[in-house]
Amino acid sequence: MKKLLVVQKYGGSSVANPERIKLVAERIAKYKKRGRKLVVVVSALGDTTDELVSLASQITLAPAEREMDMLLATGEQVSSALLAMALQKLGLDAISFTGHQVGIITDTTHTKARILKISAERIKDALRKDKIVIVAGFQGMTENAEITTLGRGGSDLTAVALAKALDADECEIFTDVAGVYTADPRVVENARKLHYITYEEMLEMASLGAQVLQSRSIEIAKKFNIPLHVRSSFNYQKGTIIHTPPKKSKEAKAMEGALVSGITLNKSEAKLTLCDVRDKPGIAARLFKKLSSEDINVDMIVQNVSRTKQTDISFTISKSDLKKAVKIARGVSKAIGAGEVSIDSDVARVSIVGVGMKTHSGVAAKMFAALAENKVNIEMISTSEISISCLIKKSSSEHAVRSLHKKFNLGRR
Amino acid sequence: MKKLLVVQKYGGSSVANPERIKLVAERIAKYKKRGRKLVVVVSALGDTTDELVSLASQITLAPAEREMDMLLATGEQVSSALLAMALQKLGLDAISFTGHQVGIITDTTHTKARILKISAERIKDALRKDKIVIVAGFQGMTENAEITTLGRGGSDLTAVALAKALDADECEIFTDVAGVYTADPRVVENARKLHYITYEEMLEMASLGAQVLQSRSIEIAKKFNIPLHVRSSFNYQKGTIIHTPPKKSKEAKAMEGALVSGITLNKSEAKLTLCDVRDKPGIAARLFKKLSSEDINVDMIVQNVSRTKQTDISFTISKSDLKKAVKIARGVSKAIGAGEVSIDSDVARVSIVGVGMKTHSGVAAKMFAALAENKVNIEMISTSEISISCLIKKSSSEHAVRSLHKKFNLGRR
Repeated sequence: MKKLLVVQKYGGSSVANPERIKLVAERIAKYKKRGRKLVVVVSALGDTTDELVSLASQITLAPAEREMDMLLATGEQVSSALLAMALQKLGLDAISFTGHQVGIITDTTHTKARILKISAERIKDALRKDKIVIVAGFQGMTENAEITTLGRGGSDLTAVALAKALDADECEIFTDVAGVYTADPRVVENARKLHYITYEEMLEMASLGAQVLQSRSIEIAKKFNIPLHVRSSFNYQKGTIIHTPPKKSKEAKAMEGALVSGITLNKSEAKLTLCDVRDKPGIAARLFKKLSSEDINVDMIVQNVSRTKQTDISFTISKSDLKKAVKIARGVSKAIGAGEVSIDSDVARVSIVGVGMKTHSGVAAKMFAALAENKVNIEMISTSEISISCLIKKSSSEHAVRSLHKKFNLGRR
Repeated sequence: MKKLLVVQKYGGSSVANPERIKLVAERIAKYKKRGRKLVVVVSALGDTTDELVSLASQITLAPAEREMDMLLATGEQVSSALLAMALQKLGLDAISFTGHQVGIITDTTHTKARILKISAERIKDALRKDKIVIVAGFQGMTENAEITTLGRGGSDLTAVALAKALDADECEIFTDVAGVYTADPRVVENARKLHYITYEEMLEMASLGAQVLQSRSIEIAKKFNIPLHVRSSFNYQKGTIIHTPPKKSKEAKAMEGALVSGITLNKSEAKLTLCDVRDKPGIAARLFKKLSSEDINVDMIVQNVSRTKQTDISFTISKSDLKKAVKIARGVSKAIGAGEVSIDSDVARVSIVGVGMKTHSGVAAKMFAALAENKVNIEMISTSEISISCLIKKSSSEHAVRSLHKKFNLGRR
């Protein structure tokens, strides 16, 4: 019988210290005993990357990105060597490789390089010899043998790309949460772990605040139709499978019933309002062009319909961009003769996500009703094909999530 | 005018933290301004290597050497990237490379690999572009792209080997001492820094306890006749040049006068005595063969001339091997029907080193006289072509070094 080939990825918290590395090794040993071929991608130990960044920042605040990559790539090399040792200690035949050793070739965009191709010759060779292959995540090499890194969430990307290159049967992402939930279990007591979720929903949830997986790795998995199994490294329960549901299967039919898959909450945004703007074409464009040129992402935008010649423009941005954005908004306001710029940091964005809502009307109305019934005032609204977001007061946001979770009947039954 | 090409090596204490790295960068900037082409080899930051070894030891006490090399090689990659950043911060064009990026090809003896060849293409290319080249010391790569390390003192070896491969004009070893001294300045107040010393003397001193340079790098430098300049990274004074003196030069003539170049002291040995051994051929061989098969290096050996049929065999070993050696000695004693094994850890080995003594008699006599005049009892004696060692009580050893230093007139004049 052909052995299943599984790519597994373990995040930084799963390999935070030697004790945890030993636990991960024991877990891998169990999977190996079940007769699998295993390729394991590891992140750097816990805070290693932060510590390396801190070392660099003590030397210069503007390090060359090439040198940053030389520095940061060491983190995953350390964890992969240690994990190989831990497996060998258990009597298993394991071997660790750096990104360049397994031929992960990237473009030359240091600190956020894109993978161009993977030869994976050494991995295939080691698998033929029945070795467990450990690969340092997050890193690659350019055609000219320069070391590169893949940006935030880069180890997930390594795992997904290797699963594609090796034509793996499964790609498992082990992390410190048990899977993808209908809502944050810290907020909603009876939040339910989803058995399945589509790539689109997961992408939407990631962009709306769910921090399980980085968007780029989901995009790649979607592109090559590689199912991702997100699960906990601290127990043996199944997690959530991110995939494209097979058409007309039972599963797909069951899923059609679910209009809403999950609810996300994002407290990291702030709202700015530019008051008393003349209602004239081009004004909004001027503001948002300037913000964009300073690399500030604007999320929600609302411009009131005006009955006078004046209007207000409100928009949300990440709190980390607040200072810069206020300065820009004030500058634009002055230049166009508008009024003051008001700031509201006491806001939160609550969103419902689900492919089902594409074809069903009434989902938005149900959401607004649930909020109204619970006396939650909606300040701004934005929608996409598979999500609806409302900006509300932060103080009532967790209550709002719980209300929506109940209204859409998402809890454990 | 052709620019001088200089290979510099900075040890772990010189790059112990970001502050020190910045100081090293300023030093390199000064050399660069003098119009030199520079290739800089760095060790890992201060205690990094120890920390990595400790991580591994928390996982297994017998890590595979291949994985150990994967782990340890990261230390120098970190320091070389940080040094490149520090130079760039000063406005200099610097670039860091790993051992494998510059084509340092080694054999497959992990953790103490030997360099087979160095292509150095990327270094030459970067030098042509007038860049300062930083190379991670201590590491190389096998023909099969496996990462290797060169063992203790490996960064010195990298520097010497690069100096050879690049046909460099100079090879400077920056360390936390000012050079090679006639004796340890902490023991002998007026110890004199030597301007020159021969490879042979330096090798002898290294083997007798002087910790300035690892023997292997001296051997390579000697083989290819590369002068090494050992100097402090904390000031700009000249250090000690290790070389072969030009024949019949003034310098050589001046050196001929110096019978003794330096005095070393080694307190890390212990003496074992196997008592009441029958004076029969083969007994000593049996003991020392057994010790050698257990990887225990024996330094000095004395077997008393016996007037009865019994004799005592005394020998010295490193204190770190004491437990193992005692066990072996007791085993052999029992097997051959000899007496007890006595242990003396309160010993020290004081040695005089100098190429001059090869052709001059009387040096040994002068040494013994100096010790006798100072009431220092000699327990064992051993000699080589360019050194004489005496084992004495540890308590009187520093006094002995000072006496010999004075007797041979080695101090600052």
